[in-house]
Amino acid sequence: MRRVACAPLAPRVGDLAANRALTLAAIGAARRRGADLLVLPELATSGYVFADAAEARSVAVGADDRLLTDWAEAAGELTLVAGFCELGDDEALYNSAAVLDGDGVRAVYRKTHLWDREHLVFTPGSAPPPVVDTRAGRLGVLICYDLEFPELTRSLAMRGAEVIVAPVNWPLVARPPGERPPEVVIAMAAARTNRVFAAVCDRTGTERGLRWTAGTTILDESGWVLAESVEDALVVADLDPARARDKSLSGRNDALADRRHELYGTGEAQPGASAR
Amino acid sequence: MRRVACAPLAPRVGDLAANRALTLAAIGAARRRGADLLVLPELATSGYVFADAAEARSVAVGADDRLLTDWAEAAGELTLVAGFCELGDDEALYNSAAVLDGDGVRAVYRKTHLWDREHLVFTPGSAPPPVVDTRAGRLGVLICYDLEFPELTRSLAMRGAEVIVAPVNWPLVARPPGERPPEVVIAMAAARTNRVFAAVCDRTGTERGLRWTAGTTILDESGWVLAESVEDALVVADLDPARARDKSLSGRNDALADRRHELYGTGEAQPGASAR
Repeated sequence: MRRVACAPLAPRVGDLAANRALTLAAIGAARRRGADLLVLPELATSGYVFADAAEARSVAVGADDRLLTDWAEAAGELTLVAGFCELGDDEALYNSAAVLDGDGVRAVYRKTHLWDREHLVFTPGSAPPPVVDTRAGRLGVLICYDLEFPELTRSLAMRGAEVIVAPVNWPLVARPPGERPPEVVIAMAAARTNRVFAAVCDRTGTERGLRWTAGTTILDESGWVLAESVEDALVVADLDPARARDKSLSGRNDALADRRHELYGTGEAQPGASAR
Repeated sequence: MRRVACAPLAPRVGDLAANRALTLAAIGAARRRGADLLVLPELATSGYVFADAAEARSVAVGADDRLLTDWAEAAGELTLVAGFCELGDDEALYNSAAVLDGDGVRAVYRKTHLWDREHLVFTPGSAPPPVVDTRAGRLGVLICYDLEFPELTRSLAMRGAEVIVAPVNWPLVARPPGERPPEVVIAMAAARTNRVFAAVCDRTGTERGLRWTAGTTILDESGWVLAESVEDALVVADLDPARARDKSLSGRNDALADRRHELYGTGEAQPGASAR
């Protein structure tokens, strides 16, 4: 069993020092709860509703920044997945997530599907999301809107991910009474159709008039909710990532082996057939 | 606007005459309600829990059978999508769905993803599901377990389907209190991520000890429930299929155009790159 935690923070937009303190405190809290994995929200270092690209740049850090070294040191045995505003070697800004533990930065993923005004600030990543072996299981890392592409969550499962880990910032949208946030419904379906766990860490609060969903949710490999956000408290669930290796659905069915990829044509060139 | 209806029948296993009467009665009821589209469950002509393949064969009919002619005649202006136990020209049995209207049979789809013991009775279809222009909108047709392949629902949307229409027979499975059937969650995510409507007609009752979910649901293009099963009553919703043509999610986002297919590799050959 592994203990998975998500810390639904409310970062302060444009205040790197305050967010450093918030994130380090969350790592401490998760370690005290015995967590093997901690997920922090998207852009936990910077906030989200930037006045302009210059404001984002003013708090962007490289993946070799002291902040990430401090995160790694604080993490120790714990594996941390945290969203941050990345300044690339190429001087471009990326909406990124780092996977770290006491040994340092294990992977950095740059969000590949940008949402709305993010296009005015960030460059989309050009590499597929990583699947990283960690002490907390084999993690497939996505960021927010990425989750809404079922071919992407499928590809992580096909590549062996046991837990889909997603820092998100979900702006609150209307939904019918009694319904879960629509993004959670999508994550539930992704978990169930792929037989993978999911740990989605959303932020909380309101930022420059934008209210957040606070939809942090940890899902089991049947897509059911193991734990979900209540106020700003740490969301914690114990799960066995290895259960995600069993894709059988019945004595004669397997969620991945039953795929008939020759039937899924969309009328466009496919990976392997062409490169962009 | 189009009026969409689903008739959650309980077919009698192995009794073609009884099921003919049930299905014709449902068509009549839907026409009286002014429906433009009627969906009937999977295997509405035969029932599901066959003692063996011979029993299925005893009630199988060809797509040119008098039953389908009668359905078409009864349908008139209404478009009907109905599951039936098909005897192929090749003498194989298929778990099929026909799309019909007063002009006759418009398409027949043979289920491509078979569930569990269906493998002992049916041959899986070899053709992708059809997308059919009808008076009730542009319909993409799937059957039951097919729905659990997000690459398949995606491909229907990419091919222009406005409404995913699915005859199903969902065996009742355990779910946490207060949750929808898991198959409905998957359909909601498929509708929302693809901006398509969905009309899923499940059967009702218990058959040879197998209890059915009775999960009939009509979804809007945001994945929310427009109407759902209450007892055996006709499930009806009015919707505008053309709204599914708008894939925009924000001023800068589009559910389909935002796809980055070069990033969705699964490590296997893709359609277009190879054939199976």
